[in-house]
Amino acid sequence: MAVGDNRFPDMPSIEGVRLGTAMAGIKKPGRRDLALIEIAEGASVAGTFTRNAFCAAPVHVAKAHLAEAVASSQGVRYLVINTGNANAGTGDIGMRDARETCSALARLGGVADCSVLPFSTGVIGESLPMDRLLAGLPAALEALADDSDAWKLAAEGILTTDTRIKGASRRIELSSGVVTLNGITKGSGMIRPNMATMLGFVATDAGIEQAVLEELLRAGVKRSFNSITVDSDTSTNDACMLIATGKAARVESEEDLKRFRAALDEVLIELAQAIIRDGEGATKFVTLQVDGATNEDEAREVAFTVAHSPLVKTALYASDANWGRILAAVGRASVEDFDVDKVVIDLGGVRLVQNGGRAASYTEEAGSAVMAREEIEIRIDLGRGDAAATVWTSDLSHDYVSINADYRS
Amino acid sequence: MAVGDNRFPDMPSIEGVRLGTAMAGIKKPGRRDLALIEIAEGASVAGTFTRNAFCAAPVHVAKAHLAEAVASSQGVRYLVINTGNANAGTGDIGMRDARETCSALARLGGVADCSVLPFSTGVIGESLPMDRLLAGLPAALEALADDSDAWKLAAEGILTTDTRIKGASRRIELSSGVVTLNGITKGSGMIRPNMATMLGFVATDAGIEQAVLEELLRAGVKRSFNSITVDSDTSTNDACMLIATGKAARVESEEDLKRFRAALDEVLIELAQAIIRDGEGATKFVTLQVDGATNEDEAREVAFTVAHSPLVKTALYASDANWGRILAAVGRASVEDFDVDKVVIDLGGVRLVQNGGRAASYTEEAGSAVMAREEIEIRIDLGRGDAAATVWTSDLSHDYVSINADYRS
Repeated sequence: MAVGDNRFPDMPSIEGVRLGTAMAGIKKPGRRDLALIEIAEGASVAGTFTRNAFCAAPVHVAKAHLAEAVASSQGVRYLVINTGNANAGTGDIGMRDARETCSALARLGGVADCSVLPFSTGVIGESLPMDRLLAGLPAALEALADDSDAWKLAAEGILTTDTRIKGASRRIELSSGVVTLNGITKGSGMIRPNMATMLGFVATDAGIEQAVLEELLRAGVKRSFNSITVDSDTSTNDACMLIATGKAARVESEEDLKRFRAALDEVLIELAQAIIRDGEGATKFVTLQVDGATNEDEAREVAFTVAHSPLVKTALYASDANWGRILAAVGRASVEDFDVDKVVIDLGGVRLVQNGGRAASYTEEAGSAVMAREEIEIRIDLGRGDAAATVWTSDLSHDYVSINADYRS
Repeated sequence: MAVGDNRFPDMPSIEGVRLGTAMAGIKKPGRRDLALIEIAEGASVAGTFTRNAFCAAPVHVAKAHLAEAVASSQGVRYLVINTGNANAGTGDIGMRDARETCSALARLGGVADCSVLPFSTGVIGESLPMDRLLAGLPAALEALADDSDAWKLAAEGILTTDTRIKGASRRIELSSGVVTLNGITKGSGMIRPNMATMLGFVATDAGIEQAVLEELLRAGVKRSFNSITVDSDTSTNDACMLIATGKAARVESEEDLKRFRAALDEVLIELAQAIIRDGEGATKFVTLQVDGATNEDEAREVAFTVAHSPLVKTALYASDANWGRILAAVGRASVEDFDVDKVVIDLGGVRLVQNGGRAASYTEEAGSAVMAREEIEIRIDLGRGDAAATVWTSDLSHDYVSINADYRS
């Protein structure tokens, strides 16, 4: 299941970025499961990675290589991504496999090992089939191209339980010329990114300094990938990469930076929302808007508590305006000195809760009409300050249970 | 669905406690939905209540009446419990209804209003049908008795989505004579008690000072009702009451206290585990034992993170030894400076994880054999200290979704 239309946008070329894919047979034959992103010399690259303590071998290696590539000015030249196997919980063998993947590609591409960053997604706890993975690299290199189809095939080549390919693109004018931003992502289950996403790759031909690029990614990810949840489970392999080739215009002025940030945030949010629309078993796309908090952390805590409540999620699945479950979830959030009489809860414009209980104006008919929609907004005003947060989530359906009870079989 | 045998124990009489029930037609006719517990003069009574900020009107009133009854030495004389309606999220009307329930029973029983504590459980957000509830009180008073059947009917009269009645009983010898402890409880969904339970009522004929009774309940609840979770949702109506009538032997010595505490903890844990065995849609009873933590809070954080993971819960439902999901959940718990290489995870005696990945000795056959069981222990050693915690939980099944997607319809 999935929510809303399935539209993959036209992706203009980004000079300095080419993408290639192959069917390496990593988990099963005939599936596009290996993707390369080639980056021209001189580009800036920033990344954010999962905070899961059991982070996967490729995450360890990607972080170390990225740091070395930036420090040594050798730069990042290749991202290599496989699906079908997460190379997580694989101990020393997993680390060796991730490093070997990088050095094999580095040899083929004539770059330093640290210029290659590895990414893996799929089942946790099984070792990578290195023979098949390495054998697939030449075909993926051969296929490198920069047209819209190449982006689309790469978006397909990183999927796991996703039912849709996910991309976003923007064009903006900077003071010295037009620049483009393209992004692709994957993710459907084990989605509650913590300082990163499942896998997200965004590239631009704008020129941006390393430090600025890192700040742009950190801030943008917080309000996009780090503001979504399908099932509260943070993956071992989350990573989001931002590439700036500098082949078109440079970000030079404050105004340029402002425009670029706005476009980047749009791309990141569109990609993050695409993950929720394609959340495992999703039949609803739900926006949780929390206002009136004393600070942003508090607003996020309330939003995520409601978003993670299995009772709220099953009520959403049933299109049941069971607002008591929303109220109970708000009430159990970790908020100090919570005055529930000041809390106001609206469901798609219909007032549900006021003065500690059901709003006098509320009718079951009005609530049910909103709940029947595919896209639903729950707005919670805590009435205690000016801070706000937005979180996106999906519902909990029979399909979610089926998908995850059957995933390995 | 439910896990294990369904056995309601024989409940000996507790002198000074009588129980009566009635069919008041609160939500639907022909259902035992009103229960009274009458307590003799001179008993000590302690209570713990939900930490949900949106706590229900009866919780507010029960807390206030309990404080007043203890302070004024009038004592608690009646507990009045209805099912079918939680009287939560009902604003001022809900407070008035809860108080009126108490004063009506106080008049009938010839006691002070503050000597009556009200408890409600059921759907959130609808007002109590006061006419039917008040009309049911005389029949419930008429039915007061102290035999095993009276305990059994009371256990039935407090259920909501539960499929089983739940009770536990112990007899122990103190220095001055034999005392009995009986307890009943209800709960199946919206179960992640916070400093309390759904509803639990435990009575003893032992004599125990008020302050000691309160400490016994607080400590006992932490390791029983506050160590279980079905779905992470803390109810608005949780309450656990402990009654000591003093009609048999008194707790006099340190040795008496130790024996009484052990028996009380056994009763509380048996009742809490009964809630998990009857968890909504439960097909598995799962014990999460976390050892080697630097402190108990850390151990509980890891245990609850695993217990709340929808991916772990669906794997348990599928009897799938998908240990990578357990590892990922452990890794995302809020633990500072977590060295995953020191973590050891065992599944029913089979080593799953060691040195940051799958244990060398692990075989899929051994893991699957454990997962096929109805009762499963997951033992996680963090390898960083001496603190431990135990948490009990159930799995996430299609029935859980069905029960909660259909609850109001």
